[in-house]
Amino acid sequence: MTKWVYRFGPGHADGDAGHKNLLGGKGANLAEMCSLGLPVPAGFTITTEVCTHFYANGQSYPDGLKAEVAEALKKLEAETGRGFGDPKNPLLVSVRSGARASMPGMMDTILNLGLNDETAEGLAKQAGDRRFAYDSYRRFIQMYSNVVLDLDHGLFEEILGSLKDENEYRSDTELSADDWVAIVAKYKDAVKAALGRPFPADAHEQLWGAVGAVFASWRNPRANTYRRLNNIPESWGTAVNVQAMVFGNMGETSATGVAFTRDPSTGRKIFYGEYLINAQGEDVVAGLRTPKPITKAWREETKEGGLSMEEALPDVYGQLVEVYKKLEGHYRDMQDIEFTVEKGRLYMLQTRSGKRTAKAALKIAADMADEGLISRDEAVKRIDPHSLDQLLHPTISEKAHRDIVCKGLPASPGAAAGKVVFDPDEAAELAAKGEAVILVRDETSPEDIHGMHAARAIVTARGGMTSHAAVVARGMGRPCVCGAAEMRIVAGEDRFTARGRTFKKGDVITVDGAKGEVLMGAVEMQEPELTGDFARIMEWADGMRKLKVRANAETPEDAAAARRFGAEGIGLCRTEHMFFDDERIAAVREMILADKPAGRVAALAKILPFQRADFVELFRIMGDLPVTIRLLDPPLHEFLPHTEEDCAEVAAATGVDAKALMDRARELHEVNPMLGFRGCRLAIVYPEIYDMQARAIFEAASAIAEETGKAPAPEIMIPFVVSRPELARIKTRVEAVAAEVAKETGRTVEFQVGTMIELPRAALRADEIAEEAEFFSFGTNDLTQTTMGLSRDDSGKFLGAYIDKGLFETDPFVSIDQSGVGELIKIAAERGRAARPGLKLGICGEHGGDPASVAFVAGLGLDYVSCSPFRVPIARLAAAQAVPFQRE
Amino acid sequence: MTKWVYRFGPGHADGDAGHKNLLGGKGANLAEMCSLGLPVPAGFTITTEVCTHFYANGQSYPDGLKAEVAEALKKLEAETGRGFGDPKNPLLVSVRSGARASMPGMMDTILNLGLNDETAEGLAKQAGDRRFAYDSYRRFIQMYSNVVLDLDHGLFEEILGSLKDENEYRSDTELSADDWVAIVAKYKDAVKAALGRPFPADAHEQLWGAVGAVFASWRNPRANTYRRLNNIPESWGTAVNVQAMVFGNMGETSATGVAFTRDPSTGRKIFYGEYLINAQGEDVVAGLRTPKPITKAWREETKEGGLSMEEALPDVYGQLVEVYKKLEGHYRDMQDIEFTVEKGRLYMLQTRSGKRTAKAALKIAADMADEGLISRDEAVKRIDPHSLDQLLHPTISEKAHRDIVCKGLPASPGAAAGKVVFDPDEAAELAAKGEAVILVRDETSPEDIHGMHAARAIVTARGGMTSHAAVVARGMGRPCVCGAAEMRIVAGEDRFTARGRTFKKGDVITVDGAKGEVLMGAVEMQEPELTGDFARIMEWADGMRKLKVRANAETPEDAAAARRFGAEGIGLCRTEHMFFDDERIAAVREMILADKPAGRVAALAKILPFQRADFVELFRIMGDLPVTIRLLDPPLHEFLPHTEEDCAEVAAATGVDAKALMDRARELHEVNPMLGFRGCRLAIVYPEIYDMQARAIFEAASAIAEETGKAPAPEIMIPFVVSRPELARIKTRVEAVAAEVAKETGRTVEFQVGTMIELPRAALRADEIAEEAEFFSFGTNDLTQTTMGLSRDDSGKFLGAYIDKGLFETDPFVSIDQSGVGELIKIAAERGRAARPGLKLGICGEHGGDPASVAFVAGLGLDYVSCSPFRVPIARLAAAQAVPFQRE
Repeated sequence: MTKWVYRFGPGHADGDAGHKNLLGGKGANLAEMCSLGLPVPAGFTITTEVCTHFYANGQSYPDGLKAEVAEALKKLEAETGRGFGDPKNPLLVSVRSGARASMPGMMDTILNLGLNDETAEGLAKQAGDRRFAYDSYRRFIQMYSNVVLDLDHGLFEEILGSLKDENEYRSDTELSADDWVAIVAKYKDAVKAALGRPFPADAHEQLWGAVGAVFASWRNPRANTYRRLNNIPESWGTAVNVQAMVFGNMGETSATGVAFTRDPSTGRKIFYGEYLINAQGEDVVAGLRTPKPITKAWREETKEGGLSMEEALPDVYGQLVEVYKKLEGHYRDMQDIEFTVEKGRLYMLQTRSGKRTAKAALKIAADMADEGLISRDEAVKRIDPHSLDQLLHPTISEKAHRDIVCKGLPASPGAAAGKVVFDPDEAAELAAKGEAVILVRDETSPEDIHGMHAARAIVTARGGMTSHAAVVARGMGRPCVCGAAEMRIVAGEDRFTARGRTFKKGDVITVDGAKGEVLMGAVEMQEPELTGDFARIMEWADGMRKLKVRANAETPEDAAAARRFGAEGIGLCRTEHMFFDDERIAAVREMILADKPAGRVAALAKILPFQRADFVELFRIMGDLPVTIRLLDPPLHEFLPHTEEDCAEVAAATGVDAKALMDRARELHEVNPMLGFRGCRLAIVYPEIYDMQARAIFEAASAIAEETGKAPAPEIMIPFVVSRPELARIKTRVEAVAAEVAKETGRTVEFQVGTMIELPRAALRADEIAEEAEFFSFGTNDLTQTTMGLSRDDSGKFLGAYIDKGLFETDPFVSIDQSGVGELIKIAAERGRAARPGLKLGICGEHGGDPASVAFVAGLGLDYVSCSPFRVPIARLAAAQAVPFQRE
Repeated sequence: MTKWVYRFGPGHADGDAGHKNLLGGKGANLAEMCSLGLPVPAGFTITTEVCTHFYANGQSYPDGLKAEVAEALKKLEAETGRGFGDPKNPLLVSVRSGARASMPGMMDTILNLGLNDETAEGLAKQAGDRRFAYDSYRRFIQMYSNVVLDLDHGLFEEILGSLKDENEYRSDTELSADDWVAIVAKYKDAVKAALGRPFPADAHEQLWGAVGAVFASWRNPRANTYRRLNNIPESWGTAVNVQAMVFGNMGETSATGVAFTRDPSTGRKIFYGEYLINAQGEDVVAGLRTPKPITKAWREETKEGGLSMEEALPDVYGQLVEVYKKLEGHYRDMQDIEFTVEKGRLYMLQTRSGKRTAKAALKIAADMADEGLISRDEAVKRIDPHSLDQLLHPTISEKAHRDIVCKGLPASPGAAAGKVVFDPDEAAELAAKGEAVILVRDETSPEDIHGMHAARAIVTARGGMTSHAAVVARGMGRPCVCGAAEMRIVAGEDRFTARGRTFKKGDVITVDGAKGEVLMGAVEMQEPELTGDFARIMEWADGMRKLKVRANAETPEDAAAARRFGAEGIGLCRTEHMFFDDERIAAVREMILADKPAGRVAALAKILPFQRADFVELFRIMGDLPVTIRLLDPPLHEFLPHTEEDCAEVAAATGVDAKALMDRARELHEVNPMLGFRGCRLAIVYPEIYDMQARAIFEAASAIAEETGKAPAPEIMIPFVVSRPELARIKTRVEAVAAEVAKETGRTVEFQVGTMIELPRAALRADEIAEEAEFFSFGTNDLTQTTMGLSRDDSGKFLGAYIDKGLFETDPFVSIDQSGVGELIKIAAERGRAARPGLKLGICGEHGGDPASVAFVAGLGLDYVSCSPFRVPIARLAAAQAVPFQRE
């Protein structure tokens, strides 16, 4: 019989950290902490399988669940010595979601469940604090009404606001016990008025309502968005954790806090966290009150007022230090912990691997390897390759003039400039149009996720380093400044003021997330430093990986960047980019307009010196490293003007006949250019084009040989091949050109002729094609387009709907469709190597910089990936992680 | 050691009819005739392997060939008692090409080889006829100069013309021996002047020149065109036949002729042929002199003047009748024979299976099966399915008014109307623009092939039933009238006159190939009769085949035609064709312009009654037969106007906003619509569309049930699927609509939901997809486009070059690319059936009517093909032929 409920409590637990899939991250870690003997309030976890069953069976629960929950509750009552719904000695519980992967802020939490008019009185007596009891009761009504009964927060804020106004209270702390009693009554009336039925008083009814709400929230739009952004499958489901309440709001010896075992922003080995005296956890996370540092050192460093926990509650602080060290040592990773202190007694509510910036991740991994806590291989595996992206982009130049708009907390590093936008929807809209925007908010909430993702950076006026904005921004790699209290956002007027200046929507600012500063205008940026922890981890990664990493580059700038980022060659040099240059396009058009081979040859002769110079420069930069040059690929109409106006303009500027230009453009126009007259097809009909390009390559290689004494060995790549004969025909001509050039220059250049595998037929006929091709490079962009029948230019109209509805797990242009496109790659690799043992195989295109795709092709035994220069380190790391892990 | 040369002669032969691949058709049959003891001049065949070697090794001959030829020549000299190049007793030979498949008129022939100034004198003495000897000599110089030395015919015609003019001769027969001697001298001077070297006098030099020319001609443009049109691989190569000369031009007891053992036009069992007294073979084939009937009966039937061979040479005629009967009995097929009578002695020069019209093929096959010569299975296999096309198109209506332009020979049956064109290039150009043209020529030659192929019909002023025009037209299935002597074409003026009227280029005429008449204007046509031999053979074919044949049809007319042609259901009903109707397009556009589901639902509700009525009619016509309905497939922009003018026009006509229309058209515009927002993707984003279509289908089926008591069981086909989840999602909605309609009507309709497999990913994931799909229909058009990266709309720019250069064997849109697209079909069939045993599999699209494709999918064990109604009989026959042959 399936077990649906897993219990945990001090010194015992049904599960452990290995049960993450079943119990969710939170539940599994609560169980683990219990087994470690840490102080954890007792409770139980309803498994993720219940969630799966719930959705597979029309939102109904499995047989036996109710009985198991009842049994677990009974044991919880025994363990705590309290009764669920017992007016005299009430057991209160929290109900929290807990998915397999951490989804901060996405799921809903309910505290103080089990309160009603009777148990509230019981709690008051028990705690000896009527004010606390009714404050807890009103919080519960508020939370439950919002999450379970779907009522708006505003309903309650209005009631509370009126009472405060009547009494001229400035803060909640001024409300008396009687005030809270009155508030509770008004809250209940409001719920009844809104729903037509009373707020549920029965504890069990409350519990099942909360459990249902947690499961329902697994598919709410915020959760869907988060999952989509983070590639979390919907099928995983969430667990529900029911846990006896402990209270951080039972007076001045009570507190609640969150901490990281190392600094999640920089990775420094310091205990780092925030706490609030006399508060419940929601007060910290929501950023409504600004919490204080836990350690004295950090308080002094930040020059914050008030006492640190180390100073205010030294005993409990001492316990907490012991606990955090134990947890980090046990989990062998930086932990993000939540705790509550109830009347001087420490309770652990959560531990999990802490989210961190890329920079921190590198430092923590390198430090832990140095400390001997983990191996260097493990250190490499600890870094999310995606996260490196944050480090590989510019930061603010040290020489830049900094006109400070305002300061706040350095919540997420990196820098970005953009236009101020206040509304998340507007941010998303403008970003979709290609605008760089900075989202500026008082504070953020899960509803804002899409706008945060669309923004280049985020600024909030309120909230701390662990506020929603800070946590989410770090996860997304967006620079973020939090709690910029100098900033005053004028609601409804699309402007903010700071230090006496006013900024309107659309004004450009720069966010320096590393320093916690907002700057005026678009400030000069500087290149990232690729040294220190980054360089060490990358060196370890390079030592592990088998897959080579090349870059896609055609300009000298890109080639230089590629070398800087550690590329081991150029995997794709697109020669057509060289055709668009102003100096050359006239000759290119002349070639296209020529109606006889002789005319084309004459025009191509004008392009030759430019193309040769391009290659000379590229070979010079790349030195000994391999360079794969793809001969002309796009359809010729891409080089012609298309409208009558454009034709007239070009005609006037160059002296060609406007009508001839327009006629030729019309003649070459294509209904589906992706499947058209392009790639090697051009060379079959107009062989002169590749002849010229081959000549430019061989002449350039000879020139380099002249210069350095050593000729580079270019890899000449023929695009859009579907069969052996077409490749054979072109290869023969390339070889003939090589022989001609060798005769002219007296130098022999070694070279290879290979092909792109970018059409399903080429993948299927890879055996034949490999008889001619000396290497294959999978053009995964086009292979995805043809295999899936998906035009990259057009799929935007429905791809979003496909991903939202779970029809595609990920965007197939970002991460290789492994079961479709991937199978073709596998077939081609196998057949190609069977025909030509040792055939060199690589991929080029966007997927070469996608970690999942890199892992996939590493698994297939490919030789290299090639990606844009900025993604080379990501690919290097992903390639190392793809090597099967060996624990030392 | 490879044997390069195979000898044959009376009573002996190295090879036989089974060696066609090695010796070519002509060589193999010459050997076979020798073994049968028929009178064949001795000779030898240089094998096709020499041709293959020749092209594989830079046009050089294999080692040992020269020695083998010398040896064979020595034996030929011994057998004939003559010496090659011997001035006293010269051996003359013919040199002819002979490919594996008959390629009439494509390859070059040289007669009388071995003649020079000395051997000509020898021949004169030997034959006792100096005039004959020098006539033969000048013919040889003419032929050899043209074929081997590449000199123009005109050079010689001018010399001959001048001499005739000087002497006021009207015909060649008036030239004396001395005249021919003078002509020969002038011919040789002309050759020397043109080439700078004398005409080769050495017999061996002549022979090797001729052999080289035959091999070279294998790749001349005419041969390439013929091979392309007839799907003959270039790799086959040609053999060369060297044979002792016999002379049909040695006086009144000599003759030459060609004959068919049955009438190749109608299939009637009569001996049928033409001959010329005192002529060489070239005179008959070239159509320069009009030959006479061989039999008396035929002469009387055609009311021609002169004597038949039966009357003029009764003894030899008797021998010939014996020979033809022996040959037909031996080969068990209608034979096309060539013979020469030298001074009363019969020599057989060739036998081969005779080309015939489709009608004749059916009659001959059916007759031979009735005669017991072949089995019914063999009869079915004898019919080229492509050829049925001729029979399945209209002929001239019996009631039509016939205004006769002129009469000629009924050279190839069928009828067609079109514009008069005199130039083959112009015919090809106009046809490419979609014009129906009739090619009118004095006579045709191999250079005209492309124009003949482009024309709907062919008319020649000269030439007989076996002239080039007649043979080629029959092979191509083009109606043809030959030897229309009443017609006078005015060279260079683009007009002809006949019976006192003048017809200019562009005037419309109708050709009745069956009657041999050219008619004024475009005459009324009638439907083909599908009875008689056709019906008998089709019935036998239906008894043999396992593959079902359905039709692609959506209109009542097409559905009715489908049934008439024997379709066993509809395999593809394209519902979008129903959307374009004038009455509906406004609602379709309203649907596309709606920005909310409710707006789309309202617009779709207007289309529903039309769509339902369509299906009611279709179900009614198809009765019990299955009907596969494909839900909406094309991108929505196809239903919108595209230019501003069109938008304004539609706006004015329908009252919608022109700007909204244009904006929406722009928004929906696609770079690659083939890979765009179409097929099931529409239904994922706009599920209302398929909901409406499903409702229309179920309501129509219910209405038919009401009418007939039996509901049809529609097969609902979802296009452009790439994965299981998208099909599952749509299937669920279709089932929901079915349940709704069942509830409303109280009738349950049985139905299946299946999918098109038209994208490589769908083929690869066929196992998953088959878990949802109840049938697969391979959309081979789109599967070809995506697998090969080949847009059907755009590939015209290079597909011709690919086929000409041998890079594609055939047009992949005509015949399935078996090794690429075909492998995906195979994979999908295997995986689909593994997941769902008995899964119904079919193909729809153009390939369903292509015999090679039908044979291919029959081999894969598919259940059915679906093609256009007119091609259904072709598919039925091809399906029967795909069944492995069992000799009774």
